[in-house]
Amino acid sequence: MTAASQDYLPDDRYFGPDARQKDIALGLYTQVRDLPLICPHGHVEPRLFSDPDASFGSPSEFFIIPDHYVFRMLYSRGVSLEALGVPRIDGGPTEQDHRKIWQIFAEHFYLFRGTPTSQWLKQEFHDLFGINEPLTGDNAQAIYDQIDARLKSPEFSPRPLFEQFNIEILCTTDAATDTLEHHRALRDSGWRGDIRPTFRPDAVVNLGSPGWRAQIDLLSNVSSIAVTDYAHFIQALEQRRAFFKDMGAQATDHAAQTAQTARLSDREADAIFQRALRGEDTDEDAARFTAHMLMEMARMSAEDGLVMQIHIGSLRDHNRDVAARFGRDKGADIPLHTTFTRELQPLLNTYGTDPRFRLVIFTLDESTYSRELAPLAGHYPALRIGPPWWFFDSLNGMEYYFERIVETAGLYNTAGFNDDTRAFPSIPARHDLWRRASVNWIAGLVARGIVTRADAEAMAHATAYGLAKATYRFANSE
Amino acid sequence: MTAASQDYLPDDRYFGPDARQKDIALGLYTQVRDLPLICPHGHVEPRLFSDPDASFGSPSEFFIIPDHYVFRMLYSRGVSLEALGVPRIDGGPTEQDHRKIWQIFAEHFYLFRGTPTSQWLKQEFHDLFGINEPLTGDNAQAIYDQIDARLKSPEFSPRPLFEQFNIEILCTTDAATDTLEHHRALRDSGWRGDIRPTFRPDAVVNLGSPGWRAQIDLLSNVSSIAVTDYAHFIQALEQRRAFFKDMGAQATDHAAQTAQTARLSDREADAIFQRALRGEDTDEDAARFTAHMLMEMARMSAEDGLVMQIHIGSLRDHNRDVAARFGRDKGADIPLHTTFTRELQPLLNTYGTDPRFRLVIFTLDESTYSRELAPLAGHYPALRIGPPWWFFDSLNGMEYYFERIVETAGLYNTAGFNDDTRAFPSIPARHDLWRRASVNWIAGLVARGIVTRADAEAMAHATAYGLAKATYRFANSE
Amino acid sequence: MTAASQDYLPDDRYFGPDARQKDIALGLYTQVRDLPLICPHGHVEPRLFSDPDASFGSPSEFFIIPDHYVFRMLYSRGVSLEALGVPRIDGGPTEQDHRKIWQIFAEHFYLFRGTPTSQWLKQEFHDLFGINEPLTGDNAQAIYDQIDARLKSPEFSPRPLFEQFNIEILCTTDAATDTLEHHRALRDSGWRGDIRPTFRPDAVVNLGSPGWRAQIDLLSNVSSIAVTDYAHFIQALEQRRAFFKDMGAQATDHAAQTAQTARLSDREADAIFQRALRGEDTDEDAARFTAHMLMEMARMSAEDGLVMQIHIGSLRDHNRDVAARFGRDKGADIPLHTTFTRELQPLLNTYGTDPRFRLVIFTLDESTYSRELAPLAGHYPALRIGPPWWFFDSLNGMEYYFERIVETAGLYNTAGFNDDTRAFPSIPARHDLWRRASVNWIAGLVARGIVTRADAEAMAHATAYGLAKATYRFANSE
Repeated sequence: MTAASQDYLPDDRYFGPDARQKDIALGLYTQVRDLPLICPHGHVEPRLFSDPDASFGSPSEFFIIPDHYVFRMLYSRGVSLEALGVPRIDGGPTEQDHRKIWQIFAEHFYLFRGTPTSQWLKQEFHDLFGINEPLTGDNAQAIYDQIDARLKSPEFSPRPLFEQFNIEILCTTDAATDTLEHHRALRDSGWRGDIRPTFRPDAVVNLGSPGWRAQIDLLSNVSSIAVTDYAHFIQALEQRRAFFKDMGAQATDHAAQTAQTARLSDREADAIFQRALRGEDTDEDAARFTAHMLMEMARMSAEDGLVMQIHIGSLRDHNRDVAARFGRDKGADIPLHTTFTRELQPLLNTYGTDPRFRLVIFTLDESTYSRELAPLAGHYPALRIGPPWWFFDSLNGMEYYFERIVETAGLYNTAGFNDDTRAFPSIPARHDLWRRASVNWIAGLVARGIVTRADAEAMAHATAYGLAKATYRFANSE
Repeated sequence: MTAASQDYLPDDRYFGPDARQKDIALGLYTQVRDLPLICPHGHVEPRLFSDPDASFGSPSEFFIIPDHYVFRMLYSRGVSLEALGVPRIDGGPTEQDHRKIWQIFAEHFYLFRGTPTSQWLKQEFHDLFGINEPLTGDNAQAIYDQIDARLKSPEFSPRPLFEQFNIEILCTTDAATDTLEHHRALRDSGWRGDIRPTFRPDAVVNLGSPGWRAQIDLLSNVSSIAVTDYAHFIQALEQRRAFFKDMGAQATDHAAQTAQTARLSDREADAIFQRALRGEDTDEDAARFTAHMLMEMARMSAEDGLVMQIHIGSLRDHNRDVAARFGRDKGADIPLHTTFTRELQPLLNTYGTDPRFRLVIFTLDESTYSRELAPLAGHYPALRIGPPWWFFDSLNGMEYYFERIVETAGLYNTAGFNDDTRAFPSIPARHDLWRRASVNWIAGLVARGIVTRADAEAMAHATAYGLAKATYRFANSE
Repeated sequence: MTAASQDYLPDDRYFGPDARQKDIALGLYTQVRDLPLICPHGHVEPRLFSDPDASFGSPSEFFIIPDHYVFRMLYSRGVSLEALGVPRIDGGPTEQDHRKIWQIFAEHFYLFRGTPTSQWLKQEFHDLFGINEPLTGDNAQAIYDQIDARLKSPEFSPRPLFEQFNIEILCTTDAATDTLEHHRALRDSGWRGDIRPTFRPDAVVNLGSPGWRAQIDLLSNVSSIAVTDYAHFIQALEQRRAFFKDMGAQATDHAAQTAQTARLSDREADAIFQRALRGEDTDEDAARFTAHMLMEMARMSAEDGLVMQIHIGSLRDHNRDVAARFGRDKGADIPLHTTFTRELQPLLNTYGTDPRFRLVIFTLDESTYSRELAPLAGHYPALRIGPPWWFFDSLNGMEYYFERIVETAGLYNTAGFNDDTRAFPSIPARHDLWRRASVNWIAGLVARGIVTRADAEAMAHATAYGLAKATYRFANSE
């Protein structure tokens, strides 16, 4: 690597500056750098792999247009989403010249200084495209050419990249009503990549979801169970879970604004469900139903063994105008102040000590790490703390996570890493950041005489690989 | 500088101990140390500069009596405010011997160990008065003499100090009903110091403010608009804003206990206003009116271009006895747990993408940095995050601010520095602490391979100078 | 010490890796390492010392069975409390083979990597039992033998250990209804160890406590005051406080879920008390009565001079099944989101400036350090911030505590260290961790030029010894 590249993307990046600690960190990193990637939670499209002819499109389609981590930052400084080519719901005009979009991106690339997005992008530029210099307005078109040429080469199709990335397991996230046709096609293709669905029933479970009524009809269709009441709703969900499990699913995923759990009687649940079918449900109905369905999902997980993931505290589509014009997930989902202690008590008192049950919790409120999640995970056998989520999938986010959680919960009640990304090519960079941050934290423990080198090696392997694999029940130990 | 002074106030103070990182930090610091000071928000009295004969009084008047950062700490350990010469509202007896006050202060100076107050004071003692040793009870009177002598010299009047401090812009904070006579006198004086008013209408906008009714009468007087109803209230505020803008104001400032925003109909707003005029308004009326007025102030800012600042979450005058005996702002304003996500949604959905609008938010609840403010500022074009406020205007406060905000919001959605001080002579020390803390953080990014040296230089300039200037629209770019 | 031991428990453990800072830290540590231990708050059984024949039992009884810090972690990974020999309330079967219990513990010892529990245990293993290698399943029985042999030696009885530990003062925690017979026996024994009771009236003050009615009868008995109404309840409490004070108590202690304080009229208080006597009180009654009794306890503390401690924000017995089968305090007390600013206003406005009154506050919500506790303690003379409590009695917990509190409150409004432990033999290791963490933080201030070496020495002595002694009024200054 050239000197320029050492300044751009140093080999010892992300490690603390102290020489002794860095030496320990580098030693640990060498041991985990090349371990296969376990990706138990994310949003990559299975279609990329089921279709042998799938490709990534232009540099702007590869890096900008589908990635809300990228376009939200430019939007925050006044660049319109139209100018970045983000498609409008109404099909109205947006920028079609991908070189122009790239030029705007390059001119604003300085906005990402110090953000994980810039770290991922720099590593992708370097590792995938051989770029060794910072992207600027001046070199934007030359770099576009360089990326575009490689994107058009055959080794840049998804399947070869999957193998080059050394991905051992990749889980997608799929609606309860999904027929999993891409997963089926993948299975049938004979290609060896291990890609599995995850059961995410939010659209039918959260009564307030847009288009809920239509989703229920879809559920009836795909399950062949007429969902006309609560009992059949439960039956249909159980059928779908069985189908997902049969298709290789290892986990479910659930999003809620709060962590409230509370069991309703079947009669109450049905009354709410009937009101929802008639379009007469209230906000309170929806909140109570979600709290109840988290209990039901825990029950089903205890029965079928699917690992239950819950993502708590995101207020979706905060900017209603953006949501109305560009649709969901366009970078305006904002965290809410969150509490867990009382909210999870019903669920944990019912299922938290059941050896068949496994719950992985994700939070967007870092103040809950030391206050609630670590004490809860340090007690209840079923509970694991998911890795830093979303905004906290970052160097500081990871350091803070380890420092505020492990002393109370222990490392072995954490869940390893999730890349949680839609951006398939960013997966190696995200895992690399995590592995570096992990060994840097562990090296700090060695340097401060808290763990031995032997402990450190075991911990490094666990954070990089073993914890994710064991948490999601792909292995029996870390 | 002598060896003693190096222990007392080292040249490399506040930088992390790692040699390589410190070297980078010192290099960056050299580039920003002497940049002019931008002071877009603070509480310095304009009278100090409009009156050519203004002086600072005794050492105790300079450092202790008017500074609630100082006397609160001594009060917290049992020293009465009377003994420190803080004036009583009832004119009752307080210590008049300024040497005795100074002696008490010196004997308790150890209480400030590790606080930013001690850092500012040590730097002021050294830079302004040539003091090179820690203040103690033993040397108290000698140091008093040394300070007193310099305070009496002509170069210690405000205007020469303003120039010596290299202040480029200084904004004061002024009531909506202020006639800005000192600002006018300053303009007329021909002196070149750039000192501007800021429009702070809390006393007329927050119905629960002490003496609100009298303030409304004052508003009628200064605006020559009879404020007999809500419509005329709005008209009077618009007139005052136009006047402030004409007098050089670049910004407004608003304090509220919560960040709640919500538009009332004009009819509802008028009904509350009428109840308030009759003294029949409830606490809920006041809360709803404040939430509405934040919307109105945002509307006016979008129209007149004044940058809107909001300071959220301080419970004023927590110690009611101190407030009753000594008045407001006597060191007992205590932060409240704060949330922003839902509260700001009405305002940001209405004005948050308006290119004419700029909103700077200050919080006293650090848990909101990563949870709410950074995600919001990383999306809405109008929003910038104000610098660490009050208790957090400190080395750890700044490190925490950068570490918990920049990864999500980006540096360029932060607002640079505000000294926010009543203590004019502390301004250079406060900016110096910020500049040192900033470059130390940036040097950490370089040392960890996150940003290049070239990036670091641009970031250092932005934090020290460019961001403050651009945020408050004194310049077009950072 | 051998090289193996240096890796296992290095002399410079817990200090940051920077060589210069570590050198300063070691210098400070040398000055405080051997200071006597002040233990003003904890849960050691006085019986251990009143009974000259008391012994500690087997290694499993010494380290595992009574220590919920230890067994909660194994429980969290699926080891049953029965298998660890934790006694059941119903007397049902639990593991009786202490070697088997030890073997399970040893095989799971890796779970504690990076936790303070592992640091305490490693230091106890080494300092008390001469163990120089990590505990594993392989060496479990050999280490059991080594510990068991020493436990059976006479120097391992509590009194000699108390002296060897260099404990200057040890305070226990005792119910309001306790007759303090062990404390009396201790006094009468002529042994010189300074062990004192602490008045903790939660069981009679919190109406919702299990068995409250029986506790009131007990209170009547021990006080010889028939507690038939609120007035006699207060009288009985005053009598008990006088008795505790006579027996050497220096402090009281109070637990509450929230920090709410509010004075009721005597009539309201009596009405609630009467409802409670009839078993007709509501949850709201209980909450209001607790808020009122905190006011009353503050009044009594102002009058009798006992230092008032409040521990806020723990939801006890979160896992109801564990509580039902094994009783209270079995590792499932989970923190609650906490606020103080409004809640403490009534109490602090009434007693917060009374020079006779001293209040020490403990929190389990770290977000309150900088937001509320430091600003409050930096103003009210009566208030001191208790050391990091429970889960936060850890290296990161301490660093975070100093960094988020001292800049605002000053070091001298903190309360020094409490070991707060039931595990008597862990006391030296806990103080050692605190002393190392303290000097490491102080050394960081020296290395960054924030305090001088002379300041640092005074601060190190205060954190290790002086603050605890002065806060609890065993001395007049730090």
